Amino acid sequence: MKIWEKGIAVDKKIEQFTIGRDRELDMYLAQFDVQASRAQANMLAKAGLLSAAENQQLQQGLGELAAQITSGEFAIGEDFEDVHSKIEFYLTEKFGDAGKKIHTARSRNDQVLTAQQLFLKDYTARAARQMLALADVLLQQAETHKNALLPGYTHFQAAMPSSFGLWFGAYAEHLLLDLPLFEAARTVADQNPLGSGAGFGSSFPIDREMTTRELHFGAVAVSSVGAQLLRGKTERTVAFAVAGLAATLGKMAYDLVLYNSQDMAFVELPAAFTTGSSIMPHKKNPDVFELIRARCNTLQALPNTLILATSNLPSGYHRDFQVLKEILFEPLAQLLDILDLLIFALPQLRVKPDLLNQAKYDTVFTVENINELIQQGVPFRTAYQQVGQAVNDGSYIPQRKFQTTHLGSVHNPGLAEIGEKLAATRQRLEWARNPSSAAG
Amino acid sequence: MKIWEKGIAVDKKIEQFTIGRDRELDMYLAQFDVQASRAQANMLAKAGLLSAAENQQLQQGLGELAAQITSGEFAIGEDFEDVHSKIEFYLTEKFGDAGKKIHTARSRNDQVLTAQQLFLKDYTARAARQMLALADVLLQQAETHKNALLPGYTHFQAAMPSSFGLWFGAYAEHLLLDLPLFEAARTVADQNPLGSGAGFGSSFPIDREMTTRELHFGAVAVSSVGAQLLRGKTERTVAFAVAGLAATLGKMAYDLVLYNSQDMAFVELPAAFTTGSSIMPHKKNPDVFELIRARCNTLQALPNTLILATSNLPSGYHRDFQVLKEILFEPLAQLLDILDLLIFALPQLRVKPDLLNQAKYDTVFTVENINELIQQGVPFRTAYQQVGQAVNDGSYIPQRKFQTTHLGSVHNPGLAEIGEKLAATRQRLEWARNPSSAAG
Amino acid sequence: MKIWEKGIAVDKKIEQFTIGRDRELDMYLAQFDVQASRAQANMLAKAGLLSAAENQQLQQGLGELAAQITSGEFAIGEDFEDVHSKIEFYLTEKFGDAGKKIHTARSRNDQVLTAQQLFLKDYTARAARQMLALADVLLQQAETHKNALLPGYTHFQAAMPSSFGLWFGAYAEHLLLDLPLFEAARTVADQNPLGSGAGFGSSFPIDREMTTRELHFGAVAVSSVGAQLLRGKTERTVAFAVAGLAATLGKMAYDLVLYNSQDMAFVELPAAFTTGSSIMPHKKNPDVFELIRARCNTLQALPNTLILATSNLPSGYHRDFQVLKEILFEPLAQLLDILDLLIFALPQLRVKPDLLNQAKYDTVFTVENINELIQQGVPFRTAYQQVGQAVNDGSYIPQRKFQTTHLGSVHNPGLAEIGEKLAATRQRLEWARNPSSAAG
Amino acid sequence: MKIWEKGIAVDKKIEQFTIGRDRELDMYLAQFDVQASRAQANMLAKAGLLSAAENQQLQQGLGELAAQITSGEFAIGEDFEDVHSKIEFYLTEKFGDAGKKIHTARSRNDQVLTAQQLFLKDYTARAARQMLALADVLLQQAETHKNALLPGYTHFQAAMPSSFGLWFGAYAEHLLLDLPLFEAARTVADQNPLGSGAGFGSSFPIDREMTTRELHFGAVAVSSVGAQLLRGKTERTVAFAVAGLAATLGKMAYDLVLYNSQDMAFVELPAAFTTGSSIMPHKKNPDVFELIRARCNTLQALPNTLILATSNLPSGYHRDFQVLKEILFEPLAQLLDILDLLIFALPQLRVKPDLLNQAKYDTVFTVENINELIQQGVPFRTAYQQVGQAVNDGSYIPQRKFQTTHLGSVHNPGLAEIGEKLAATRQRLEWARNPSSAAG
Repeated sequence: MKIWEKGIAVDKKIEQFTIGRDRELDMYLAQFDVQASRAQANMLAKAGLLSAAENQQLQQGLGELAAQITSGEFAIGEDFEDVHSKIEFYLTEKFGDAGKKIHTARSRNDQVLTAQQLFLKDYTARAARQMLALADVLLQQAETHKNALLPGYTHFQAAMPSSFGLWFGAYAEHLLLDLPLFEAARTVADQNPLGSGAGFGSSFPIDREMTTRELHFGAVAVSSVGAQLLRGKTERTVAFAVAGLAATLGKMAYDLVLYNSQDMAFVELPAAFTTGSSIMPHKKNPDVFELIRARCNTLQALPNTLILATSNLPSGYHRDFQVLKEILFEPLAQLLDILDLLIFALPQLRVKPDLLNQAKYDTVFTVENINELIQQGVPFRTAYQQVGQAVNDGSYIPQRKFQTTHLGSVHNPGLAEIGEKLAATRQRLEWARNPSSAAG
Repeated sequence: MKIWEKGIAVDKKIEQFTIGRDRELDMYLAQFDVQASRAQANMLAKAGLLSAAENQQLQQGLGELAAQITSGEFAIGEDFEDVHSKIEFYLTEKFGDAGKKIHTARSRNDQVLTAQQLFLKDYTARAARQMLALADVLLQQAETHKNALLPGYTHFQAAMPSSFGLWFGAYAEHLLLDLPLFEAARTVADQNPLGSGAGFGSSFPIDREMTTRELHFGAVAVSSVGAQLLRGKTERTVAFAVAGLAATLGKMAYDLVLYNSQDMAFVELPAAFTTGSSIMPHKKNPDVFELIRARCNTLQALPNTLILATSNLPSGYHRDFQVLKEILFEPLAQLLDILDLLIFALPQLRVKPDLLNQAKYDTVFTVENINELIQQGVPFRTAYQQVGQAVNDGSYIPQRKFQTTHLGSVHNPGLAEIGEKLAATRQRLEWARNPSSAAG
Repeated sequence: MKIWEKGIAVDKKIEQFTIGRDRELDMYLAQFDVQASRAQANMLAKAGLLSAAENQQLQQGLGELAAQITSGEFAIGEDFEDVHSKIEFYLTEKFGDAGKKIHTARSRNDQVLTAQQLFLKDYTARAARQMLALADVLLQQAETHKNALLPGYTHFQAAMPSSFGLWFGAYAEHLLLDLPLFEAARTVADQNPLGSGAGFGSSFPIDREMTTRELHFGAVAVSSVGAQLLRGKTERTVAFAVAGLAATLGKMAYDLVLYNSQDMAFVELPAAFTTGSSIMPHKKNPDVFELIRARCNTLQALPNTLILATSNLPSGYHRDFQVLKEILFEPLAQLLDILDLLIFALPQLRVKPDLLNQAKYDTVFTVENINELIQQGVPFRTAYQQVGQAVNDGSYIPQRKFQTTHLGSVHNPGLAEIGEKLAATRQRLEWARNPSSAAG
Repeated sequence: MKIWEKGIAVDKKIEQFTIGRDRELDMYLAQFDVQASRAQANMLAKAGLLSAAENQQLQQGLGELAAQITSGEFAIGEDFEDVHSKIEFYLTEKFGDAGKKIHTARSRNDQVLTAQQLFLKDYTARAARQMLALADVLLQQAETHKNALLPGYTHFQAAMPSSFGLWFGAYAEHLLLDLPLFEAARTVADQNPLGSGAGFGSSFPIDREMTTRELHFGAVAVSSVGAQLLRGKTERTVAFAVAGLAATLGKMAYDLVLYNSQDMAFVELPAAFTTGSSIMPHKKNPDVFELIRARCNTLQALPNTLILATSNLPSGYHRDFQVLKEILFEPLAQLLDILDLLIFALPQLRVKPDLLNQAKYDTVFTVENINELIQQGVPFRTAYQQVGQAVNDGSYIPQRKFQTTHLGSVHNPGLAEIGEKLAATRQRLEWARNPSSAAG
């Protein structure tokens, strides 16, 4: 059943190509299309475009659909090209003309876009909530291991003494810096396009501010032309947020892959997160973290793919936009999986003790030796040469006793300060507390 | 003069390869490195690591350099690998040991990063200010031309009546939706890494909160490990903002290229923004807008290039980060140029009158014909078929009289509402008012 | 059943994350893994590592699996993590120890890679064959419509007289220029990695040249370290070919979207390839071609996504490589679908006659007017100004009578020459004639 | 002096924006524009469109320009927007009308494109020659160090015995697999667009096959429409080749960064290729190789940037194409620099002896222990468990004596076979022997 059908026989193959994976992907949108349809019907009733009785019918039918979605019964069968046809068919079959009238003053364009705005807005809340949860885990681990020293690496070489307190704290702090992109994405997703029709509005006396309030949108996407420009833009902005977070998580995964290796052996990954080799019994490969890294790198390609799919189109709707769902929706779910896995894995991470007592890390203390000389009055460049000389001729004795005081250093990792940043962020993002539970 | 030189002869070619275009690109950083050095010296003096006299000398020297930068005298000669060596050399030559001491408790890593954070933070203000200025221009044009009708296109086909009020308003509104990414970028750039050294802090009793206050940073990048993770992240976040804005501007340029074409002929571009053909005297090509479009598309590739340059590196400094300047700095300046050009060009744009009176746009009124029938009680699907039939058999008479009322439609483009959004945004972004005047 | 399992309970969620969509995607590899296993068993038998009887058993079992794959019975159930486990299990259950021995001197790494090399090599043949078929269609259309004039556009503006002969011929010629990338991809896929084990070979006395011959590979990937470097590289090279072709097809689709629009109306797309609007009865949207364009743009993002997933890894196997299947395999099938659709659609395309007789295209003849003046002895710049003047003051009379003679011009579109290029290419690519029929 | 100027005052800023860096970048094209102009003049003379005397003048003038380019005297001053204006001005100033006539039957579009085709074709030869030279160096190093053992890594963990023979051989072999993309790029660059004008040919009786022969192009880009489609396509195909090679070189650089680190310490990089740390005297950072890695990763972003700049444009010239020079030309030169640096650096690389005698690499021999058991009749899975058990309980004794025999393994690295591949490739690419000496 395709509502635009005009009696022309459409080849099966073309149908497959044009519909693509919409039936599957539209499941992400189902609850939001129902929600938006309820608001639309209420508004039409208030505007006198639906009778109270018709609206009551529609609300009942949409309530049934919402229940089916929650219970998992809802499905989009082969007879329907997408979730929107399915819902309209359900209402029309049940209520006849009233069902048809829900499409008054609405186009497929603003309908799809509204459902997607709601979905993506909800997604930002779901992601943000998990990011804050992961930051909690990281900060807790930083606290637990704050005194465990770690060789700090630059250029893939051991450089200076560091600590797990600094390392875990760094990633906790960085998750907080990934959140502003989610806030930006949320702001864009928080614009209500409903009523913009095909991008040029309509002559129906609709009340766009009423649907904005009922759907808890932050603002009306005022210009109908501008409302349609959200197509592509919201997806892209969400993808920027996803890519930013993926960069952080991918880097953390990379660190852990290295820290788990025999050469470094700074941590022991939970057994369930490693696998053996089919031919080498001594190997314990960090497969899950390698896959997290690889998927995070793939997620960083997401904005670019979305951009390429649409970058050079003028304003106005083009069917090209349909492929954005195929590109975006599953990676979004994948990122939530990665957050879940990390929230589960990191508390089980075992940190190795006394790493800096190994002779191979003696030279990470050269900076301390130099500082000692400086405090004795030797100029920096001279001290630098002196210690360098000792390293080269083998006479170097590491200065293992050192005490740092400044904020963000080994002995003052600033975990309370990071905790305050975390608390302030959680406070600021009250919207992240109660995302929809049904989505995705 | 390379301060890390250890007596090894370094081949000229390698030097060229490693220094790259740093001397040129570092000019973007000069004023900010001076500013950060002043704060560093003041802090060292307070911490007792510099005498008051030494600090006075350094402040004087740095003041001289600041004046040179403002006046345009400052240059980085062939003797120096970068701006930081140049500044250090100036101070050392002038004040001897005091000059050397400014590097106490500071590494090249946190020094470069601090200057870059200040530069990128300032950049967000410069860009935001121009974006607000352009939004003003667009809104003004929307007001001027709010009653000028325009055929609204979807799928590259004339679809429904639209207006220049909606079109200009749309882009004004979208610039406001591009600003949250700049706010996110600013938040990331607003973290102070100074004092994090090579990424693991130091044992000097420095006061990182003091430099944070003096440099007007919003927060300390607490964990020294986390501070170094800003390398790549700030650039990437700024690039997301740039790409988001470029998408909007590129689309607007694309619209104007089409609207200027003979087929559409909706606007006349300012003469200075078009060029003739070398062999076709009838052509007036929209070269400047094509180049804006092309550069905006290129700017959308920026995040991806930055990501590729660094995505799979573990934490800690790697020399790879140096290439980010080559990738990022000039495009940043280019985006400001594009904003300037548009602020200059758009007020000169001539809008063609009475576009919808052309017979070729008759069918854009079919939706109005259908709505008229609906208001007479005909069900939507029936009205749709009836009008479609009339179009096909040539009996169709366009319903040119129509009146829209809802927010964001042709006769109610919501310019006041968009104006309120603009005013609220300007209010929110008070930091965009006074960016540094010297940068870039 | 996971063969590397070492008695550690593995959480269901992790399994899901690590296995991903392998069971589904591995169906692309099944026939090739069987094929490679047959060659491996024959070689092991010849090397004395399997008895003749054992080999006979394995060949029988693998023959059964091949038949199942051909008939569509073959499936990878939930008990198996991938196609390789499934096949090994089948052989082991049936033949006991003989089944286990097929893994002698083979690692999962070279096994997977070999199957993938065979699959991708076969893919290049399938794609190339369809490209040649599409070039045939285009050339035929060029011949049919060689005299149909078309306004040639530059800068989105009508510029000079062109023809459908030139337009169709151009795309036929360009498909031939997309083939060298497929040849390059084939060369990379044509290296045999079997026997390289985990990337460092083994001490078994295997004969890699024998498997190379039996599998019809063009060459041994000699260095075992180099063999593993094919992971990522073959995928990337295939993706370059895909992206190159997608650029051509996407541009052709874009042209047709425009040519089908009301403004241009140069062609009429087959009805099955367009759809109506849900609210505008006069619209006939070129949805299928818009989706082809969008998918072709998405396909152009493919190399970048693959690059990002692996770019910064050192040599040697990393589990990251597993995600490349998820990124690459379905887009490969999609491109073949697009080729099929175009081969089906283009012969049905209707070309509109007498396009250049429309007054709005008068000025495309200015170049002819100028040339006429030049042939009368007027210098070019003077003629140019004279004609430009006439256009501006309305006195211009188009020179519709013109005759071109040179190769590649309107009246000599060079279709025979393009036909010769096509024939020579078909001759060169004899490998494109008989790709495997079962794949994909 | 802008030849299309029609008396309209053009703002300086716009000029700057439209010209961009053309004057600088066009130096890459200068010799090729002269070369193409000579062929054009000769052809015009033969076609009777220039007198013999006029052609003689033009050949003389163009010869002078060629000499200036070779000697380095040639420059494009502020008076000219590009190299083409400069050359035309030189000829016109010197020879009056004859100078003007060289533009007969030529448009700026085919002129620029022809010069660029010649430049990019020449570039493929320059790159291929250096790739073959680097392959020679690698193969030589493989030969020198073929018996030096190396721990082979997978998953960032020591896995099995490998050797420098395998490692160097692998990269030699892979350079040969990067060459087919350069051959593909060359094929695309080898099409002659001269005479296609603005993309629709002309009515002049020109001989495109004559210029094809004189310029040593492999084929005519027959359809004039198709000739213009080369814009973007040749750049993209060259960029694919560049990206493919960059992936190989970047991975090699990454390996060397790791192999140079204190943890691995497999090689010692030439002193000139490392630098010290400004605060850590024990560090010797592999800066040059890190920058090679970073630049190679950046080069891998090149195709994507080019694609984004143009992907969604319909056929025909658009001014957008101009930015492709800005994107492409300097990276091309950078890649040649990287090849030069590697050809210079690799022979100086010092390989550390006896790496596998270190106790930390004992377990890389487990596969050998297992194979020994298998040869004693123990089934693979049993042997695997037995050796794994020994590793876990500390009773494991490495089987250091092992002998591999198969092609591509430690004791049979197949260098002669790789040498044959190299010789055959060199034979095939005779065009790589004599690229132009002046370019770049």
